[in-house]
Amino acid sequence: MTIKTHKYLLSEDQMPTNWYNIVADLPEPPPPPLHPGTHEPVGPDDLAPLFPMDLILQEVSTERYIPIPDEVQDIYRLWRPSPLYRAHRLEQALGTPARIYYKYEGVSPAGSHKPNTAVPQVYYNAKAGVKKLTTETGAGQWGTALAFASSLFGVECEVWQVGASYDAKPYRRTLIETFGGTVHRSPSRLTAAGRAFPEDHSGSLGIAISEAVEVAAQREDTKYALGSVLNHVLLHQTVIGEEALLQLEMAGEKGADLVIGCTGGGSNFGGLAFPFIREKLAGRQSPVIRAVEPASCPSLTRGEYRYDFGDTAGFTPLMKMHTLGHDFVPDRIHAGGLRYHGMAPLISHVYELGLMEAIAIEQTECFAAAIQFARTEGIVPAPEPTHALAAAMREALACKESGEEKVIITALCGHGLLDLAAYESYLGGQMVDSGLSDAELQAALAGVPTLA
Amino acid sequence: MTIKTHKYLLSEDQMPTNWYNIVADLPEPPPPPLHPGTHEPVGPDDLAPLFPMDLILQEVSTERYIPIPDEVQDIYRLWRPSPLYRAHRLEQALGTPARIYYKYEGVSPAGSHKPNTAVPQVYYNAKAGVKKLTTETGAGQWGTALAFASSLFGVECEVWQVGASYDAKPYRRTLIETFGGTVHRSPSRLTAAGRAFPEDHSGSLGIAISEAVEVAAQREDTKYALGSVLNHVLLHQTVIGEEALLQLEMAGEKGADLVIGCTGGGSNFGGLAFPFIREKLAGRQSPVIRAVEPASCPSLTRGEYRYDFGDTAGFTPLMKMHTLGHDFVPDRIHAGGLRYHGMAPLISHVYELGLMEAIAIEQTECFAAAIQFARTEGIVPAPEPTHALAAAMREALACKESGEEKVIITALCGHGLLDLAAYESYLGGQMVDSGLSDAELQAALAGVPTLA
Repeated sequence: MTIKTHKYLLSEDQMPTNWYNIVADLPEPPPPPLHPGTHEPVGPDDLAPLFPMDLILQEVSTERYIPIPDEVQDIYRLWRPSPLYRAHRLEQALGTPARIYYKYEGVSPAGSHKPNTAVPQVYYNAKAGVKKLTTETGAGQWGTALAFASSLFGVECEVWQVGASYDAKPYRRTLIETFGGTVHRSPSRLTAAGRAFPEDHSGSLGIAISEAVEVAAQREDTKYALGSVLNHVLLHQTVIGEEALLQLEMAGEKGADLVIGCTGGGSNFGGLAFPFIREKLAGRQSPVIRAVEPASCPSLTRGEYRYDFGDTAGFTPLMKMHTLGHDFVPDRIHAGGLRYHGMAPLISHVYELGLMEAIAIEQTECFAAAIQFARTEGIVPAPEPTHALAAAMREALACKESGEEKVIITALCGHGLLDLAAYESYLGGQMVDSGLSDAELQAALAGVPTLA
Repeated sequence: MTIKTHKYLLSEDQMPTNWYNIVADLPEPPPPPLHPGTHEPVGPDDLAPLFPMDLILQEVSTERYIPIPDEVQDIYRLWRPSPLYRAHRLEQALGTPARIYYKYEGVSPAGSHKPNTAVPQVYYNAKAGVKKLTTETGAGQWGTALAFASSLFGVECEVWQVGASYDAKPYRRTLIETFGGTVHRSPSRLTAAGRAFPEDHSGSLGIAISEAVEVAAQREDTKYALGSVLNHVLLHQTVIGEEALLQLEMAGEKGADLVIGCTGGGSNFGGLAFPFIREKLAGRQSPVIRAVEPASCPSLTRGEYRYDFGDTAGFTPLMKMHTLGHDFVPDRIHAGGLRYHGMAPLISHVYELGLMEAIAIEQTECFAAAIQFARTEGIVPAPEPTHALAAAMREALACKESGEEKVIITALCGHGLLDLAAYESYLGGQMVDSGLSDAELQAALAGVPTLA
């Protein structure tokens, strides 16, 4: 039996021209971020030292659709629309009646979904006259994306990379430099926030964010860019879900039964899921929406829904989110992009509203799934989306038992070609799982501020 | 000014269903390979210990078109048709009136053009009951491709990787293992051909071929697969050029003025160029066809057109080709895939017929071009196609001088995400050029057998 269609490709003129803002469709608005001193809601002016006004307005917007500037669309066309694939060979290997689709963002310059927001962020900063951007990066995907986008607009880009990833992934640094960025290992000696930790500390996204924010706040022509968590970042990523809706239609599907994405800060997940949640709220589809997080950093499944800082040093506003505590330092799992103590406030809110569910999976199950995926579909996934793939395979095997022909769509948010050390560890039998004990969790949560 | 179209994508049903065999259209047939003992032309039976009969028949075929089996097309659809891109942003950066297109094969499972032939080779072997395939790999692209294809057909895959590449690219080994293959550093201690060299020798494709051939020749159920050089390999790669012809038409071009590809063994170059040469021979287009080789391994531009062995130990038939001598060991340039002492006999013949031209470029010029390409187009090229890009940029800058609006098409045969050590070397200012002296060349050629 011949396999007729594997790829569902949109033409460039089918690319979305608007970003979708889920806030417009939610039954209640998300709780506002609070000023850490006054505990009053922060206004646009409070954010102005770090972000250009166009992005701040997107952060607080309640408009349903926000137009994508032509200059951003032009650059998106370097890799967008991204392909949707039907995983025929994986389905055959699993013997499942489920139909598995994956939306692949690994075709971008950074090899992940991150350029979807890096490009507009740099665009709006350049438009506002900003000369330099600082940022953090975990796995390195975000730093790569921002370096690439910065090179296109002639903006300088300085990246603090989480120590554990910096050590494990030297090629990521070279890639960022190839695109013209500069990289520091975090914690660095360049900032007070970094110097608060020993130089050989493995770092965390929280610490790296503090470092980048500290530097940006000191200079007029320098601003800060965040690769996940914030509303405007999730907004930019909705091109993923908008395209996927069109592509499922191309594939002859009436809709998805299950939408699965991994969650670290939440931008890849929100990018795919939010347009599907819009369809669900409008009654046009009724998919289950499932987030998958690493068992060693389970903010949604085991964190508390409280106001907490976005960074370790406490420079950011207080955001209401599912948190493990802002001084929580996750184990050195290979999915560096998922090692964040909190969950995007918007996703936390959507979760509290009961519009989605969440599970946590240990990394060895994820890599077993990744190997099977690579050997059937030919793509080596980044460690982060192996979580989504493992969850999709669990469901596909459940369908084998039940006989259900579910339509499963998975966010394959990046390739793992710069993460082969993780595969080496798995194949060599050295990979270990690292659950989180209740005592560790309670200790980490003890540092979260208590609001009056 | 908005950039309208960057990608020219074919649908899966526009994928070629035949491979193109240029032998059918050449004014004279290529000289036959000779038995090393008798110096008589080798027949199919001489090749049977190493290859299944289907591939041997393709090797000697004079049919113009050979149908691509459905089972192979099904797997091609995992990544084919591959995209053709217009390099708008590179053109802008160069200020050239030329229109530069690149045919990108980095979308494949191996990240290069190699799976185009790995899949049919494994298919025909599996069909003939072969249980295990041995091969060599230089940069690692070919070993990855064969491991992936083997996993799909349940065939074992054992790879000898050129020592210099094995040492410099540990992730390539992991990738081959991820796809289920096993890897040995060449020269290994597992074969007589390997043991003829010290264990820490940097190796060469010639040595690695000898090792893989030696093992395959010893066992009934084991055969050998070659990633370049042979007629059937170049045949399989013609899907590249066939697609590119359709895509240039989509882009509104009447044809190409210049077709550029890098040459190591010749398969990527032949794959793009042969269909264009067919059009040229038929008078439908009149492109200049230009091969680009590394200055340190210049088989076409400085080698001699003579009968020589394909491997170092002299196990293969004698092939008439441009050669630097089968015991030539090229410098450790980063383009590991171009470190081969000979040129595909079919390309050598086409060159002798005056249907194409060749130039050689030093690696630092290539990497300078690659950095500019990455920062404008967002793709980090493998070291091999940086040669083609550098040549394309030379031509684009010449067009800037002359005002000519040439249509240039370049084979971007793979991405460089597993070659970032080379970029690190370049960015760090450590990369050196390594031309070949006449004395070195003459010494190497002295070992080529003289036929009566």
